[in-house]
Amino acid sequence: LKESIKLGIFGLGTVGKGVVEQLRKNGALISQRLGKELQITKAVTANPTKDRGIDLSDIQISSDPKDILDDPEIDIVLELIGGVTDAKSIVLEALQKGKSVVTANKALLAECTEEIFNMAYQSKGLFGFEASVAGCIPVIREIKSSYSGEKIEEISGIINGTANYILTSMIEDKADFQVALKAAQDKGYAEADPAFDIEGTDTAHKLIILMDLAFNGLFDLKELYVEGITKITPLDIEIAEQFGYTIKLLGKAVNTDKGFEGRVHPTLVKTSNMLASVRGAFNAVAIKGNFMGPTLSYGAGAGAYPTASAVMGDVIEISRNLLQEAGQLVPPLASMRDQLSKKKILPMSEVTTEYYLRFSVLDEVGVMSKITTLLGENDIGIRSMLQKGEAHSPKDPIHVVIFTHKAIEKNILKALAKIDSLQFVAEPTNLIRIDTE
Amino acid sequence: LKESIKLGIFGLGTVGKGVVEQLRKNGALISQRLGKELQITKAVTANPTKDRGIDLSDIQISSDPKDILDDPEIDIVLELIGGVTDAKSIVLEALQKGKSVVTANKALLAECTEEIFNMAYQSKGLFGFEASVAGCIPVIREIKSSYSGEKIEEISGIINGTANYILTSMIEDKADFQVALKAAQDKGYAEADPAFDIEGTDTAHKLIILMDLAFNGLFDLKELYVEGITKITPLDIEIAEQFGYTIKLLGKAVNTDKGFEGRVHPTLVKTSNMLASVRGAFNAVAIKGNFMGPTLSYGAGAGAYPTASAVMGDVIEISRNLLQEAGQLVPPLASMRDQLSKKKILPMSEVTTEYYLRFSVLDEVGVMSKITTLLGENDIGIRSMLQKGEAHSPKDPIHVVIFTHKAIEKNILKALAKIDSLQFVAEPTNLIRIDTE
Repeated sequence: LKESIKLGIFGLGTVGKGVVEQLRKNGALISQRLGKELQITKAVTANPTKDRGIDLSDIQISSDPKDILDDPEIDIVLELIGGVTDAKSIVLEALQKGKSVVTANKALLAECTEEIFNMAYQSKGLFGFEASVAGCIPVIREIKSSYSGEKIEEISGIINGTANYILTSMIEDKADFQVALKAAQDKGYAEADPAFDIEGTDTAHKLIILMDLAFNGLFDLKELYVEGITKITPLDIEIAEQFGYTIKLLGKAVNTDKGFEGRVHPTLVKTSNMLASVRGAFNAVAIKGNFMGPTLSYGAGAGAYPTASAVMGDVIEISRNLLQEAGQLVPPLASMRDQLSKKKILPMSEVTTEYYLRFSVLDEVGVMSKITTLLGENDIGIRSMLQKGEAHSPKDPIHVVIFTHKAIEKNILKALAKIDSLQFVAEPTNLIRIDTE
Repeated sequence: LKESIKLGIFGLGTVGKGVVEQLRKNGALISQRLGKELQITKAVTANPTKDRGIDLSDIQISSDPKDILDDPEIDIVLELIGGVTDAKSIVLEALQKGKSVVTANKALLAECTEEIFNMAYQSKGLFGFEASVAGCIPVIREIKSSYSGEKIEEISGIINGTANYILTSMIEDKADFQVALKAAQDKGYAEADPAFDIEGTDTAHKLIILMDLAFNGLFDLKELYVEGITKITPLDIEIAEQFGYTIKLLGKAVNTDKGFEGRVHPTLVKTSNMLASVRGAFNAVAIKGNFMGPTLSYGAGAGAYPTASAVMGDVIEISRNLLQEAGQLVPPLASMRDQLSKKKILPMSEVTTEYYLRFSVLDEVGVMSKITTLLGENDIGIRSMLQKGEAHSPKDPIHVVIFTHKAIEKNILKALAKIDSLQFVAEPTNLIRIDTE
């Protein structure tokens, strides 16, 4: 049996360096738990000579992927370069060569789900991807192991720290979206090009991975409904608060009688819901099962150290397995390969939920009657209503907010199309969905 | 290789029945994830003929432990009878005979830690006890696997649903302790004899298991400091709220430079802390690691179905292992046997934290000066202070509340002993510790 486990790392960026540092700092503790030593023997990076501010002298660094992939001594390959193309060939080749693989790459897993997991099943390799969703929150291990006796009914995740950081500053500092985004960029929480985070793409990547795991399915990323947070205003946040809600960007998947909902959009969450308490760049994933009921896991969703920690958890789990030559015990996507099938996501128009509708209208006689009539004609019931502010001149729009009862989205869209074409409507209606629990 | 995994259950009470029901309801889903079938073939209970309200006709029920323990067909023994004596012999004998064991019994693990785990290590049996701490919250798997690369710095748990239910009604219904306890009993959240829950014993059992796992140690339950919630008054709750705190019964373990703190007591938790949002009978465990930072896991901490769910998660994990004859991959107590050692808990007098002190004093000249002088003489700094109410007669006590800076507990006790013996002190001072994060 092996005397140590040897790791080869692709990528010495934030996460790669984090893993090196964690092993340096916690190596003795890790050996107490593993019984053997973990060693990072090689790293491959585009720029091997770059000074990275930490001592890497005991690691053989090159720019040639073969140095790791063709080294029979390397037990576990860590893919920490991100991006899709190169990462894909590294992961596929490593698995094919019988190595174990750990990755933090959600874009890769979401966009190339079948290729990657077909290989993981076929090669019977050990494949860890805990770090790909929600940083150090062990949601993947939860679904694959702890909740394996559950019919999972619902997943609601705050799984993009940047978007949550921005929404939190909009709430707590009463900043508008652009100001909050700028602040997030200045503090390093948002990229110079923030589209990926604020438009919901990153949340969608992570949600689709969770859906595959939870629902024994292979879902298509392109079928997810994805809407970002750019149209949320301080006014929406204020009114939501007044009615006992906080606005969060949720990735939400629901196993309904009609089919699987999968959607990413800003959502009004009740203040008493644990998700409402998740502030700043933190993440949380709420999972409901038919026996366990509601659960929630919370932690840092990004950052060098929390992500390294999730990578390290996978590395240790795989190492324990390798040291006893135990083989693949848990199926890579939670269920047996022959039980996995392509599954459809319900079109957004078929989703039933509650809605926050903010109408911007001129303060004329008969406005409310028109709006409520059109809602009624489309089977949309009104739960509460608020008129906000007074017009100072007949041309200033006022805001009317309606909280609806449950309605089907296609009816909402039909009603709004009619309402928004009325002459007294000054701006398109702002629609935000409400979490119905 | 095996065609199915056969389970023998000891105990058909709440949890045992829950496991039977979960397997009935989710059996098909479980087989999709496991690849083989799980079957409950036998049960042993004191009263085999009792009508339990569910169909048990396919399970062979007897009152003789040998029927399960001596049956070579049974792969996994589920110990769900609770209590210590009988449960211990079942678990030890099953492990000794080479069977895998799953238990939900925290009292057994906390009181007989060494005997049980010595056998688990020695027999190399698969031993699951996720259900013993915090119901369906997978905190044991988190520490053993997901967080295995972490130096765990701190654990803070709301791990007794009854106590949290009572404190929540004291907060939300402004009920006093006895009224809230009665309501909890009427609703079935508290036993007729509630001592185990409200005095902190149950929390202590769970905390010691988490400490053993997190700190590679064998700790002595008797060294834990344990204080229940019976002396919390509505007045304390109101003042805490006014200063931005909620009162929770926490089980807390801290890995400090001076040693391991282990303590169970009512605690003032900042309202912005996720733990403050845990309402009713729910549980949550917050764990801090040196790389991942703060995390929290939340869910139902008790009840038939959530507990069954945790048992089932263990059963499936063990079954996956048995089906591939993989052996014990993860050490029963997270670290290798030779790395486990007896560890001491720091005496409570050596703990340093912040304190809420509510003095009940007569409204006389010089009172404040005496109290603050005695605090100062014992190196206790004052962070904020409040005088509550006015005396209607010279004999009515008034309440003076002081929030201290960090101080060492022995100094606090020394100061309080002196203060409480002063003539103007009407009642013993109420001391509640503050969570310093």
